[in-house]
Amino acid sequence: MSWDKLTVEQQQQVEHQLSILKRGAAEIVPEEALKMKIMKAVVTGKPLKVKLGLDPSAPDIHIGHTVVLHKLRQFQDLGHEVQLIIGDFTGRIGDPTGKSETRKQLSEEDVKHNAQTYQTQLGKVLDLNKTSFYYNSTWLGELRFDDVLRLAGKVTVARMLERDDFAKRYATNQAIHVHEFFYPLMQGYDSVSLESDIELGGTDQTFNILMGRTLQGAYEMKESQVAILMPLLEGLDGVQKMSKSLRNYIGIDEHPNDIFGKTMSIPDTLMLKYYELTTALPNTEIEELRHGLEAGTIHPRDAKIKLAKGYVKMYHGAIAAEEAEQHFITVFQKRALPDEIEEVSLEGGHLEDGSLSIIRLLVSLSLQASNGEARRSVEQGAVKLNEMKVTDIHAQIKPVDGDILQVGKRKFVKIKLV
Amino acid sequence: MSWDKLTVEQQQQVEHQLSILKRGAAEIVPEEALKMKIMKAVVTGKPLKVKLGLDPSAPDIHIGHTVVLHKLRQFQDLGHEVQLIIGDFTGRIGDPTGKSETRKQLSEEDVKHNAQTYQTQLGKVLDLNKTSFYYNSTWLGELRFDDVLRLAGKVTVARMLERDDFAKRYATNQAIHVHEFFYPLMQGYDSVSLESDIELGGTDQTFNILMGRTLQGAYEMKESQVAILMPLLEGLDGVQKMSKSLRNYIGIDEHPNDIFGKTMSIPDTLMLKYYELTTALPNTEIEELRHGLEAGTIHPRDAKIKLAKGYVKMYHGAIAAEEAEQHFITVFQKRALPDEIEEVSLEGGHLEDGSLSIIRLLVSLSLQASNGEARRSVEQGAVKLNEMKVTDIHAQIKPVDGDILQVGKRKFVKIKLV
Repeated sequence: MSWDKLTVEQQQQVEHQLSILKRGAAEIVPEEALKMKIMKAVVTGKPLKVKLGLDPSAPDIHIGHTVVLHKLRQFQDLGHEVQLIIGDFTGRIGDPTGKSETRKQLSEEDVKHNAQTYQTQLGKVLDLNKTSFYYNSTWLGELRFDDVLRLAGKVTVARMLERDDFAKRYATNQAIHVHEFFYPLMQGYDSVSLESDIELGGTDQTFNILMGRTLQGAYEMKESQVAILMPLLEGLDGVQKMSKSLRNYIGIDEHPNDIFGKTMSIPDTLMLKYYELTTALPNTEIEELRHGLEAGTIHPRDAKIKLAKGYVKMYHGAIAAEEAEQHFITVFQKRALPDEIEEVSLEGGHLEDGSLSIIRLLVSLSLQASNGEARRSVEQGAVKLNEMKVTDIHAQIKPVDGDILQVGKRKFVKIKLV
Repeated sequence: MSWDKLTVEQQQQVEHQLSILKRGAAEIVPEEALKMKIMKAVVTGKPLKVKLGLDPSAPDIHIGHTVVLHKLRQFQDLGHEVQLIIGDFTGRIGDPTGKSETRKQLSEEDVKHNAQTYQTQLGKVLDLNKTSFYYNSTWLGELRFDDVLRLAGKVTVARMLERDDFAKRYATNQAIHVHEFFYPLMQGYDSVSLESDIELGGTDQTFNILMGRTLQGAYEMKESQVAILMPLLEGLDGVQKMSKSLRNYIGIDEHPNDIFGKTMSIPDTLMLKYYELTTALPNTEIEELRHGLEAGTIHPRDAKIKLAKGYVKMYHGAIAAEEAEQHFITVFQKRALPDEIEEVSLEGGHLEDGSLSIIRLLVSLSLQASNGEARRSVEQGAVKLNEMKVTDIHAQIKPVDGDILQVGKRKFVKIKLV
């Protein structure tokens, strides 16, 4: 298909789609093929099939995950189709070596339950009417040994050992079990099975997504998929990739006040990146923001409030967004206690002399999940009793009715002895 | 099981079996486990299951192959059971990369036909009544993707790359396709499936056979198989491993005169090794031979005639053995032409001036399979017409009735013009 054969209107449409779809992408491999595919879609009216693979383990989506979801949504808004693949086949197998505790075998019910949660959470960003869900056990579960050998015959060991983590482990004599080679092969075979035109993923998925490209070629599909690789979003610390394990994340199911407060804590320098990658704000408005911030006509705090409010609105609705903003202004900007503090009952009867350690108090009131967490909060100066810091982890407290205990900037309780 | 608990008779039996089974073995891994297994078999009366894997491609057994077969026969004579596994699963897959012409996909009929040929040929050494044949497609063909992943999860990539040929290819950047890792895994899984006690093979099979040991352990079998590794027999040149491609072999289906003649051509230094590894001659008689040869009371030629006659007897019967010996004595020892030379018809009518090239003559009379082969024989001085060497490949011959054409030491025809 040649550019010159397109009408001017078609050419404009292609340019329009590309300007949206390229936004924020770290890499598109190969970029020319993306253009060809979009030209074809525009001319034929046939939507592209855009694939994303999902981990079948318990989903708990944070803003970092929404980077690829927003990209998918852009495809949907431009009329394309989204294929979401739940990797239940892998999940059902668990860890064949039996050595890893983290990769537990998931039951079919686990997988179904998790898929349900995905639908609920992803529906906040995606248009579910234009989204097809697939379980890859549907096709992978049917493969027999000879099919598997044929699949494995498409790739060399050397190519596999080029994958970053394999290369590092092989170089440092850490075990790589042979079955691990099949994870990229399975992901790639999904693309063969669904004839995907495009696969999305973070830059850490480059190897696996390009494997799909290789395998589609090896299985003699006419065209191979294009990889759109999105940057990994830095978390609240502004340095490390946003992740649950690093505790630098904003979960979309978190309390609106937490989403709002956490968003306000991201470094100013990252704000535009967050806008670009994790909101639906049009390119033009992002450019206005950028210019306003550079010219000093927009205060970074206001831009961040807009971002925070946008997140709460997207994930919890407009009313929650207003309330969260109000809460934030009351607590942080007016530096006062919030209007309404939750009253929590504390059984005073079983305290020997009416006192207990600050650690036990924090845990008893469910302000902290564990003794360890409570200790760290105290040590870091995050705990206040009636607006006075408590920094001694051995401090003994004699709570009285109406005491206000605070952890960090956003957690408050009023004690009621019962 | 403890040695001291055995009766003296049982102990003698174990020692007796070990003295036979260890004969000629290059390595037994682990040797102590072989003793334990035999002790158990002697005490319980339960025979050991001794496995040998067979290539499913067209069998054409030569004396080199019979090294492991004679070892199996020793096991049978001691009351144990032999498991012969035809690797049809591998054969039916062919080469998944489609790049190798040598590993063609075998049809089910090919496989069955080859298995039949195996039975006929192996029956010359083995006791087929104590031999079970298996096709490994029976169990391997039933495995699904998740089973295959479980299998692959038992072994690391580093271990696989320790296999000699993989190591060399990896080091020199020659492609190893991922499916190739499954050949040792499949062979090992055969041992799991059949609960083999012992696996036999040449020393070039060490990696694959030890994989069976590993996998039996990984699949939690109580005991793992013992590897009995036999030396690779040098061929007629006395240096290289006997093989078809090196043309230094004695095929068991070859003409008795060829078997006899080829055997007479092996270096004297290898004779005792041939006796030890490829005949059923008892240890005591081999020792007598050794002493006789060392003391000079036995002439090497006589020992070799005995060996040659033994081969022909084993593979073609006693009468053929007598005839082959007679033929040998007539042709080589008396340096005369044999009594009876086959008369072959040659159409003289279509020769322009009654002559044709020596090359065409050799091929027309089926003394040589191709022009190339014929040329080489002439160049090497192996061709004689009426006992005169023909060394010019362009020589034009006018054959007359009764001409005797000879190639090498053993091929003669008498020409009859028609």
